[in-house]
Amino acid sequence: MRVRHKPWAREMLESHPQYVVSSPEQYKGNWKAVFEKDQPLHIEVGTGKGRFITEMAKANPHVNYIGIELFESVIVTALDRLIEADLPNLRLLNVNGEKLTEYFAKGDVSRVYLNFSDPWPKTRHAKRRLTYKTFLKLYEEILIDKGEIHFKTDNQGLFEYSLMSFSEYGMLLKFISLDLHNSDFEGNIMTEYEEKFSNKGFRIYRCEVQYQ
Amino acid sequence: MRVRHKPWAREMLESHPQYVVSSPEQYKGNWKAVFEKDQPLHIEVGTGKGRFITEMAKANPHVNYIGIELFESVIVTALDRLIEADLPNLRLLNVNGEKLTEYFAKGDVSRVYLNFSDPWPKTRHAKRRLTYKTFLKLYEEILIDKGEIHFKTDNQGLFEYSLMSFSEYGMLLKFISLDLHNSDFEGNIMTEYEEKFSNKGFRIYRCEVQYQ
Repeated sequence: MRVRHKPWAREMLESHPQYVVSSPEQYKGNWKAVFEKDQPLHIEVGTGKGRFITEMAKANPHVNYIGIELFESVIVTALDRLIEADLPNLRLLNVNGEKLTEYFAKGDVSRVYLNFSDPWPKTRHAKRRLTYKTFLKLYEEILIDKGEIHFKTDNQGLFEYSLMSFSEYGMLLKFISLDLHNSDFEGNIMTEYEEKFSNKGFRIYRCEVQYQ
Repeated sequence: MRVRHKPWAREMLESHPQYVVSSPEQYKGNWKAVFEKDQPLHIEVGTGKGRFITEMAKANPHVNYIGIELFESVIVTALDRLIEADLPNLRLLNVNGEKLTEYFAKGDVSRVYLNFSDPWPKTRHAKRRLTYKTFLKLYEEILIDKGEIHFKTDNQGLFEYSLMSFSEYGMLLKFISLDLHNSDFEGNIMTEYEEKFSNKGFRIYRCEVQYQ
């Protein structure tokens, strides 16, 4: 994603502490303190402009959601959506996904969403892919037992790589669609990116994998 | 595949015992007696008209091959090819793939090829798919430790199902291509079916999986 510099973004994020959790390390092991209801927590790593996580939170009031995005200039759009929707079960985190274990304890999270992550196509950049083994270890360290990753991408190479990486890590492939938009999968919520690339005729790949 | 009845097929197969092994159960645990050289044995279950296995045998003289096909009227074409090529490292078996353990002992086989197997798209026919768990168990019972299955198909549903079935069985997904003919995979040998459907613009899916 092209990231445009927005000098006012930091101030906007800081002025909405009810939506953008400002000192997330204090909630490690106690995220229920942030939400109205004590219910399962699903997080999206790389939440971008936040359409997916906002729509998920609207559609599933029995689940708490946290959207995590590193880029201030991008997450402000997610904040705009959240201010508009004023959802009690969605919060945003403007932190680096590499540091998840600083903010979440084992079992805090029930599910991790990865949507249209950067494919990092060069082999020498494989370690940066969000489905590389070091990331799979990170997610495992914050997920409940038998926690799940739900992953979507339009990038064929990243999907091939990720299936192999999940398998190598010993995870169970519970669901695979090699053409999501031409399948009978129901209730798909599209990201901004997904709608754009699907309209151009690209296939969308999706899988659900489980730690064992 | 449409199977045309050929009343002369049985006689033709029986008249070429040097190519079509007639009492395969006698070689269980001793397949090296059938071949000139004692070298790894790869089998194709559902070998059809035999183009793949014949070309593989030509290209890889250091490997022994057996093509297994139930339909007499189909395997006679494979026999024609083998007569023409007269390969010392290829034999044919006109038997039912469900009975592999009657003909092969544990460790007899190093690799199983499945190419464009019948997709059996109805859920109630899932047990007939050659990647259903009962078949994965059959292959395991004749393969060496860490033996492999190499699988190709143009059928998206069968490929999705098979990846999940391999994973559920605890196998390692070592290689996945979601568009073989537009990848940098080298040395692909096409089946008759593969050439026809690829020319029509269908994607070819391929994977290599390993027992653990």
